[in-house]
Amino acid sequence: MYYPEPISRLMESYMKLPGIGEKTAARLAFYTINMKEEDVTDFAKNLVSVKRDLKYCSNCGNITESDPCSICSDMNRDQSTILVVEQPKDVIALEKMQDYQGLYHVLNGVLSPIEGTGPEDINIPTLLKRLQNEEVEEVIVATNANVEGEATATYLSRLIKPAQIRVSRLAHGLSVGSDIEYADEVTLLKAVQGRTEM
Amino acid sequence: MYYPEPISRLMESYMKLPGIGEKTAARLAFYTINMKEEDVTDFAKNLVSVKRDLKYCSNCGNITESDPCSICSDMNRDQSTILVVEQPKDVIALEKMQDYQGLYHVLNGVLSPIEGTGPEDINIPTLLKRLQNEEVEEVIVATNANVEGEATATYLSRLIKPAQIRVSRLAHGLSVGSDIEYADEVTLLKAVQGRTEM
Repeated sequence: MYYPEPISRLMESYMKLPGIGEKTAARLAFYTINMKEEDVTDFAKNLVSVKRDLKYCSNCGNITESDPCSICSDMNRDQSTILVVEQPKDVIALEKMQDYQGLYHVLNGVLSPIEGTGPEDINIPTLLKRLQNEEVEEVIVATNANVEGEATATYLSRLIKPAQIRVSRLAHGLSVGSDIEYADEVTLLKAVQGRTEM
Repeated sequence: MYYPEPISRLMESYMKLPGIGEKTAARLAFYTINMKEEDVTDFAKNLVSVKRDLKYCSNCGNITESDPCSICSDMNRDQSTILVVEQPKDVIALEKMQDYQGLYHVLNGVLSPIEGTGPEDINIPTLLKRLQNEEVEEVIVATNANVEGEATATYLSRLIKPAQIRVSRLAHGLSVGSDIEYADEVTLLKAVQGRTEM
């Protein structure tokens, strides 16, 4: 209406991103006009590339350029441990830690009766297939500590334990560097319950 | 490093936008992966389009698809009044008010000795040419109410007044220190109606 057509169209695209409303979209669109030509064409190419060049690893469900992904095809990693996460982002956070040497399995979702997400809708069948075919000794469940994450963890534990595979859950407690006075009750409860001998 | 190449490249592009750091860029990049194919290709096209299809109006300096722009070529508008603003965004804010019927002149900047921006660096010479060639009776200076904006207004006033053209400034219905683009329509209307002789 008031904006030239190319600007309003770009604003609409920006507004499809999470947390970006009309005012921010306008600010970004006008900013884009004054960006370097090269940066803008790169931006456009990178957008297309992220949809075109990325796929899900057929083994672990992580996002990857090559299938199987670099982690699944790395024979130096501990093949007997699988760490289960909700999203590809979680793998990145855990890899930044530079300590875990096992494999991953990305559910790409979480069990949620309210949203109608059942075990078949997320990567649980492929996980079970891996447990049958690979020599897995331990499954570490690292779903988030909320209702859906806990429910998914419990579901997986009940499913996997009968196969004589160890199932563990990431420790919950105080984050390093945080103060006790600012911790919420549930975190404190978990910290006390999971206390370790000194 | 930890991110697949296409994701880290897209993150770099997002981080070129104002106010977007690494965490937000990662969030947006992962969100983009799950966006509809069509929305992402449209986004890419709109980015390129905003650089390719927009130019500056050779008459008023506003951003436009066609030169001269739709406002300059609209003969129903009052040709005797020119409202001077800093940026194309300001024109949009003023047009939203749906009251002003005159023409515009976009400086695309503001006088700033600190940043070394002089009269020749912004669209002041083209404004003076318009004042010589067109039958202009009044120039309304609507630069922002900050140091540079006020200095630019004073400079223009001294330059234009000797040519027997009325120079006015938006009334300070606008709160001092705020930008025109963020003002609401009613405040802008009051500001135009209450403009004062310089």
